[in-house]
Amino acid sequence: MSPDRQATTVACCQVSLQVGALEANREACRRAAERAAGDGAHIIVLPELAASGYVFDSREEARTLAEPVSGPTVSGWTDLAARTGITIVGGICELGEDGNLYNTAVVVAGSRVRAVYRKAHLWDTEKAVFTPGSQAPPVVDVAEARLAVMICYDLEFPEWVRYPALAGAQLLCVPTNWPRFPRPDGERPMEVVRAQAAAAVNRMYIAACDRVGRERGVDWVGGSAIIDPDGWPLAGPADDSAGIIMAACHLETATDKTISEHNDVLGDRRPALYRRLFEESPKVHEGGSR
Amino acid sequence: MSPDRQATTVACCQVSLQVGALEANREACRRAAERAAGDGAHIIVLPELAASGYVFDSREEARTLAEPVSGPTVSGWTDLAARTGITIVGGICELGEDGNLYNTAVVVAGSRVRAVYRKAHLWDTEKAVFTPGSQAPPVVDVAEARLAVMICYDLEFPEWVRYPALAGAQLLCVPTNWPRFPRPDGERPMEVVRAQAAAAVNRMYIAACDRVGRERGVDWVGGSAIIDPDGWPLAGPADDSAGIIMAACHLETATDKTISEHNDVLGDRRPALYRRLFEESPKVHEGGSR
Repeated sequence: MSPDRQATTVACCQVSLQVGALEANREACRRAAERAAGDGAHIIVLPELAASGYVFDSREEARTLAEPVSGPTVSGWTDLAARTGITIVGGICELGEDGNLYNTAVVVAGSRVRAVYRKAHLWDTEKAVFTPGSQAPPVVDVAEARLAVMICYDLEFPEWVRYPALAGAQLLCVPTNWPRFPRPDGERPMEVVRAQAAAAVNRMYIAACDRVGRERGVDWVGGSAIIDPDGWPLAGPADDSAGIIMAACHLETATDKTISEHNDVLGDRRPALYRRLFEESPKVHEGGSR
Repeated sequence: MSPDRQATTVACCQVSLQVGALEANREACRRAAERAAGDGAHIIVLPELAASGYVFDSREEARTLAEPVSGPTVSGWTDLAARTGITIVGGICELGEDGNLYNTAVVVAGSRVRAVYRKAHLWDTEKAVFTPGSQAPPVVDVAEARLAVMICYDLEFPEWVRYPALAGAQLLCVPTNWPRFPRPDGERPMEVVRAQAAAAVNRMYIAACDRVGRERGVDWVGGSAIIDPDGWPLAGPADDSAGIIMAACHLETATDKTISEHNDVLGDRRPALYRRLFEESPKVHEGGSR
């Protein structure tokens, strides 16, 4: 694609990974990120757990693959960001200073780590490995954008996606590992449909980066996508092969939440009403007998 | 379609309407609902503002087309429901007992009105005509289902859709009037994409019924759809012509919210965390300087 001087170029590096292959995985990410940067990307999203891989045999195995944020994976990204001027968002298997394991994503920009986020909604057997995060998805200003980050299954909780939208995020970066589920012929992965809706109801760009590479019997669906604030994919959804998708994003358009002369997707929310109703337990209407 | 004795048959009657043509609109709805009932439908969804039409010239015009819930439109549906045994969900331009106009939907089952809902999120010039509702979407037990109702733009607020899901609704009925917006070739209307995601993240059936018929320069997209708890359309999305879509729904499957051995789309929510974060204002991360 030809660079657009008015736009911010966002890339998702849908790399092939293997659980446990720390060096090979780091190298696959580095190569893809360098190629995307060479092609003009300003912001690069890498998958969830991009160095360790995903399908751990046990918590113990995950621990042997974990590293602190100051460890080699993020240091490599910091070096790369400093060298190329890009912003990198990617996931690691974090060994916390408290000794717990976290499914973590970092934002690296300039020559340093700008934000660390720990996945708050854990998928399946992750619950046996990781401690869930309890902090909001960070929203950070980098050179090109006000961006936010969350991880994979987090994106299926619309309450969670609202948070960065309300904080003014223009681009939500989502490192993911999306296992393949059956779907009807001709349909996109439901993960992509949910991401489209999340972008549209918040008028926010979303860049979701999956990985590929069969791992201990698990296939990944691919489907990485860069979605605009109307909910349409600008790039992707990718198929299930390794590759880079890129899109020129006019991020400032995500600041405008109006969708008609009298509507604004955030301004039209009824937070006082939501608060009142959810304080009571949702209940079945006393409309009469069955 | 052949009736499935294990299933509940849900129908959306995507009728052609004209603003102001009260009798003709009621007749179009009656005919379509009778046909759907004859074809085996148990639950029938009609559009938003199904008797009045939508594109009012003024609040005054809307007032001349408004009626109380006890008025002729809902009385007709009550008669039809009593005669056929079906459940009807449809929209009217309601003249409230307080003199205000409401964009309202009713649930009629057995021989009576089981629930009345007033649209809480108003679209565009509706704000000059209607008073927004301030009550939760009702969740009611009818013979075939625990069903809920909301109207059109309401569905774009995931906070609102959560409410009936938490109250155990198996089927969310959504009378709509979806204006046509431009969309990329090959794409579904974004209204359908949002409905798919809403169904999937809540594991709940959604039946959204649009209308057709060009009205004062406004085209409706059609796109009526009956969507399963995985987010896939069982029927529709319809094109932009008048017609009936029907689907056999195994509503009890919507009671099971599990999506993996360790995941449950409602149980995995972190309400205490959401509450804490939203009590503070969402904020940009203090990660350092730009």
